[in-house]
Amino acid sequence: MKQSQLFTKTRREAPKDEVSKNAQLLIRAGFVHKEMAGVYSYLPLGLRVLNKIVGIIREELDKVGAQEMLMTTLQQKDVWETTGRWDDTVVDDWFKTTLKSGSELGLAFTHEEALTNIMRTYVSSYKDLPIYAYQFQTKFRNEMRAKSGIMRGKEFLMKDLYDFSINKAEHDKFYERMKDVYMNIFTRVGLGDRTYLTMSSGGSFSKYSFEFQTVTDAGEDVIIYDPEKRVSINKDDYSDEIFADFGLRKEDFNFKEAKSVEVGDIYTLGEKYSKALGLTYKDKEGVECSVYMGSYGIGVPRLMGTIVEVFSDTKGIVWPESVAPFRVHLVEIMSDNADVHAEAAELYRELTEAGVEVLWDDRDARAGEKFADSDLIGIPLRVVVSEKTLAAGKFECVNRATGKTEHKSTSELIGHLTA
Amino acid sequence: MKQSQLFTKTRREAPKDEVSKNAQLLIRAGFVHKEMAGVYSYLPLGLRVLNKIVGIIREELDKVGAQEMLMTTLQQKDVWETTGRWDDTVVDDWFKTTLKSGSELGLAFTHEEALTNIMRTYVSSYKDLPIYAYQFQTKFRNEMRAKSGIMRGKEFLMKDLYDFSINKAEHDKFYERMKDVYMNIFTRVGLGDRTYLTMSSGGSFSKYSFEFQTVTDAGEDVIIYDPEKRVSINKDDYSDEIFADFGLRKEDFNFKEAKSVEVGDIYTLGEKYSKALGLTYKDKEGVECSVYMGSYGIGVPRLMGTIVEVFSDTKGIVWPESVAPFRVHLVEIMSDNADVHAEAAELYRELTEAGVEVLWDDRDARAGEKFADSDLIGIPLRVVVSEKTLAAGKFECVNRATGKTEHKSTSELIGHLTA
Repeated sequence: MKQSQLFTKTRREAPKDEVSKNAQLLIRAGFVHKEMAGVYSYLPLGLRVLNKIVGIIREELDKVGAQEMLMTTLQQKDVWETTGRWDDTVVDDWFKTTLKSGSELGLAFTHEEALTNIMRTYVSSYKDLPIYAYQFQTKFRNEMRAKSGIMRGKEFLMKDLYDFSINKAEHDKFYERMKDVYMNIFTRVGLGDRTYLTMSSGGSFSKYSFEFQTVTDAGEDVIIYDPEKRVSINKDDYSDEIFADFGLRKEDFNFKEAKSVEVGDIYTLGEKYSKALGLTYKDKEGVECSVYMGSYGIGVPRLMGTIVEVFSDTKGIVWPESVAPFRVHLVEIMSDNADVHAEAAELYRELTEAGVEVLWDDRDARAGEKFADSDLIGIPLRVVVSEKTLAAGKFECVNRATGKTEHKSTSELIGHLTA
Repeated sequence: MKQSQLFTKTRREAPKDEVSKNAQLLIRAGFVHKEMAGVYSYLPLGLRVLNKIVGIIREELDKVGAQEMLMTTLQQKDVWETTGRWDDTVVDDWFKTTLKSGSELGLAFTHEEALTNIMRTYVSSYKDLPIYAYQFQTKFRNEMRAKSGIMRGKEFLMKDLYDFSINKAEHDKFYERMKDVYMNIFTRVGLGDRTYLTMSSGGSFSKYSFEFQTVTDAGEDVIIYDPEKRVSINKDDYSDEIFADFGLRKEDFNFKEAKSVEVGDIYTLGEKYSKALGLTYKDKEGVECSVYMGSYGIGVPRLMGTIVEVFSDTKGIVWPESVAPFRVHLVEIMSDNADVHAEAAELYRELTEAGVEVLWDDRDARAGEKFADSDLIGIPLRVVVSEKTLAAGKFECVNRATGKTEHKSTSELIGHLTA
């Protein structure tokens, strides 16, 4: 894409009320626009990153046979009353609205009720199970706290997956598999090293559950973790009891403490929703049984915000290759020599043809401004075309993360990028 | 995909309160689930179709240099008060909700205000224009009428594009271009023949505007149209005056009248929103001018519902190839001869490798049931694998639309599908 045609520009300052680093950088670089606290629009660059993350999650979920669908925001009261979650004193972050007829509706903050209800149409026998269904859907949460930029939103895109199994054993098997799936996802977006499968209290359905915590100062949680042995416990739940329950010995670990962000959670729901809503199946003997469930969430903007918190420096964002809006930032240094522009245009054409995503800074602007913008936007590889590189016969290639500069011909560059 | 793994099943009956043909068929075939009147969840098959349509629209919009983004549902009151559209007596289909702080928010039914506001950050000079930005975003409309299935929703995915131009002339040029873009989209989804660029009254911004009307008995509109000369007028706006204004002579046409669905609309907005919200640019002489705007909508489920209304018969849906959930329905007729299953598996593998999307009916069910389901689901080409086809050395290939049967070997079939 030509940068002259991108409608966003970089900004020197983020809005004064924006205190989080992730939103400050994303706003300044033109990835998002703040509509109000905790509510952000995604501009073209931001949507590209969001879609890259969505693509990685989708690939990993499709590998385990999960089926994608798309449920609705508007929710009817009666289904949620059945499970006891309609009441604002039980769930304190509902957004509610009203139909013309006067009926109250909820804006979904999660979809256990909706999907369990749908499954009643399709599940009758053990032969129909297990089912793994997921969606990327906008969730609404009437949050008071909204100081973490895109990491904690009132409206945000969430991947939520649900498993419907015949019993605990079948569910547990899938639950274990999802631990690996989630770690693959976090590794692919660049956060593998600092993300820990973390033990925490399980809420109302099970004594313990697991969450994925990424170590960063921007986190609102704290974990006690051993970076070598990859064992981690949410500080809120750290106790002698948890060690005993998991058969671990405290003295075997070398624990550290750090602030962290919960980037994913995996819950055992058991029969809570299936029993309340009557989702049953007949087993081999014809006996009516309740379906055994689990749910698995990832907030996509939270993951994107965490990536920005972790991968940024004083000059701007440093996107990991897998989620970068473009692979190459082709920076053309304006020159009276028309050959420079022709060379940039030719390189853009060749890279694009080779399937490389390129943002071409063809704007009529000074080199210093272009480099500063390029650092702020954070595309992994900057390729400079100038009179100097024209004379040298090789382009200057600068790695955004390491700052390392190499000089490459077109074929060397394409070879490197498509290897 | 293996049909045994698809969690939906076909149903004999749609819910009794569902009167529209499109929703009846889509529910029975397992494409959508009705949450309430005008609110539908998209099940795996339905989401595939929705995404196919989204993909076609995106391709056509990207060709004209439009930039994709994603705005929010939650809308702040003040921006809409500025343009006079917050009041429920002005806009009668708002859904509204309330923040914890007590502030009222709206659920966006359109995004002129939001995007005009965003553009204030990025537009300052004539050099920044024109800008074409679009999104696929869920719209909320508190509709009373909701008897048209997925064609008229309270919550639905909409493609909305906005142009920001320096003046009427620049906008008009793009507006004309969008007429062709829209017709390309409707042609690609199979509705080209029966879709007419239709003159209608322009609302508050211009005397006339254009909408795209597709002839079908399921329509809520009526058009007066000449199928040969491709001239069409919304019956509500049919008058001698409209002929005079467009320089047409009534006697030159051979008009018919038919019910139709508005599948797209293109509006000139002029300076209404830019003036109200202060979106200006400096022209070459440094004079401050208001940006000239237009908006261009397509309701994706409405288009999908229209396709079902038009392309269906007594047995079920007949998807056009471009939007079908799969290209081939591979129907394996159960047999004691293990070679039949092996042959089906091998064909599935080869088609998938050749890039053909296949739904493989590998379920343990009778042939009659499989054929009835296949007709209902409506995948364009059914390929039958049975003892008979095994003996013949060729598969039976049945075209869903024409009913025409051909016999093809694997290589003939792949050649045909990848031609």
